[in-house]
Amino acid sequence: MKQHAIGIFDSGVGGLTVCHELIRRLPNERFIYLGDTARVPYGTKSPATVTQYALEAATFLQGQGIKLLVVACNTASAVALPELREKLKLPVIGVLEPGARAAVAGGGCRIGVVGTEGTINSGSYERSLRSLAPEATVFSAACPLFVPLAEEGWAEHPVTRDVAGEYLAPLLRKKIDTLVFGCTHYPLLRKAIRSTVGPDIELVDSAASTATEVADLLYSEGLMAGEGEGEQQFFVTDVPTRFRRIGSSFLGAELHVVTQVHIG
Amino acid sequence: MKQHAIGIFDSGVGGLTVCHELIRRLPNERFIYLGDTARVPYGTKSPATVTQYALEAATFLQGQGIKLLVVACNTASAVALPELREKLKLPVIGVLEPGARAAVAGGGCRIGVVGTEGTINSGSYERSLRSLAPEATVFSAACPLFVPLAEEGWAEHPVTRDVAGEYLAPLLRKKIDTLVFGCTHYPLLRKAIRSTVGPDIELVDSAASTATEVADLLYSEGLMAGEGEGEQQFFVTDVPTRFRRIGSSFLGAELHVVTQVHIG
Repeated sequence: MKQHAIGIFDSGVGGLTVCHELIRRLPNERFIYLGDTARVPYGTKSPATVTQYALEAATFLQGQGIKLLVVACNTASAVALPELREKLKLPVIGVLEPGARAAVAGGGCRIGVVGTEGTINSGSYERSLRSLAPEATVFSAACPLFVPLAEEGWAEHPVTRDVAGEYLAPLLRKKIDTLVFGCTHYPLLRKAIRSTVGPDIELVDSAASTATEVADLLYSEGLMAGEGEGEQQFFVTDVPTRFRRIGSSFLGAELHVVTQVHIG
Repeated sequence: MKQHAIGIFDSGVGGLTVCHELIRRLPNERFIYLGDTARVPYGTKSPATVTQYALEAATFLQGQGIKLLVVACNTASAVALPELREKLKLPVIGVLEPGARAAVAGGGCRIGVVGTEGTINSGSYERSLRSLAPEATVFSAACPLFVPLAEEGWAEHPVTRDVAGEYLAPLLRKKIDTLVFGCTHYPLLRKAIRSTVGPDIELVDSAASTATEVADLLYSEGLMAGEGEGEQQFFVTDVPTRFRRIGSSFLGAELHVVTQVHIG
């Protein structure tokens, strides 16, 4: 079981920012990543549809013989986690709870959350943050253009700073002290977001805390891989061309071998 | 057969701009519209995946007893039309050829085309324009942010003008005299695009010429509905909330009844 891979899935390339952190943190592990690029994005779709897609993705990864599933997509983490945990015979870790924990650990008491429409409308971050820090006040904002801007490669484009200015203004008026990136695409926009919010607001993304949670769980369950060269396999549900081209900036490395599979 | 409906499909809301023109032009007809909102967008997906989705959508509409299918999606028109025509026992009209014909009818000889990545990469507009007007020179540009900007309701936002400026600059440098909207979302951005290109460039969208082609075909085949009150039915593959909210500005009318269906 220790030698089994860790499964990671996302609607597309965004989860590669989490994959990057997992590889850095757990260099001996084998990772199998699935991007559901034939049906991306999840952020504009309904909870029922996202849950169905997430179950199909998870079933594919379970069939690959994984020891743990990481849901590296905030929208799926926000709406599908209970059903995934019920249906799979595996530990399942989402990115939302680690993100919320990281925000609270920073000591923030006026916490802003940005994410897709699906994530924000679900109210899952608010619930998670309120249960961890009942004294904190939470403000949230959907930022639908952030994903297409990140995928367009306009991370440092003036347009991205303008869009960030517009989306974040209502949160800044609320005097937030912490801003949670509730979408795995947003770390690519960190510079534009930082220049919009100024130097004093704590920016939190869930990749590092998700990696910590995965490491802790592997350790406590005795599932950590032994010494050795880790490896990664990448699967997508549409042809790999665009995933390979766009994904490398999310992973921080070239994506050499990407295989198309049919799921669902 | 005359009383049968006209089927229209698109990946989501964009085709409602074509539906609007069809209703205006053919007020006695019954229309059945399907938006594949569970898998939208098509513009970033591969020809094989788009073709599969288009066949599933067309099969659903054929099952509703339609007399004619309008593919109100440029990406699907660009990549899936031959297979749709082969597999369906119905006349099939896409938006791409009518758009190309309208551009050529305007007398343009330096024609710019803007569209999704899928439409532009297919080269279908270039082929269609070259066959209609071998003397014309065609320049094209993918504009991936236009669809999310239109769906965000930022049609007249300064950011949209900045994005249009950046995407259209290479075409303006080529001294185009005509610009074809190779995506059914783009008519919503007409003002921002007009202010970017100035008053002298002919802007062509395929809705009107598609409606003309549909009317001509109904007439020549003796399929035109008799006098009477036309009506419309709207189906989507995800829950209707977002389609209803965003779609009304595309249709130019409220979307009261929208029904979710499962296809594929």
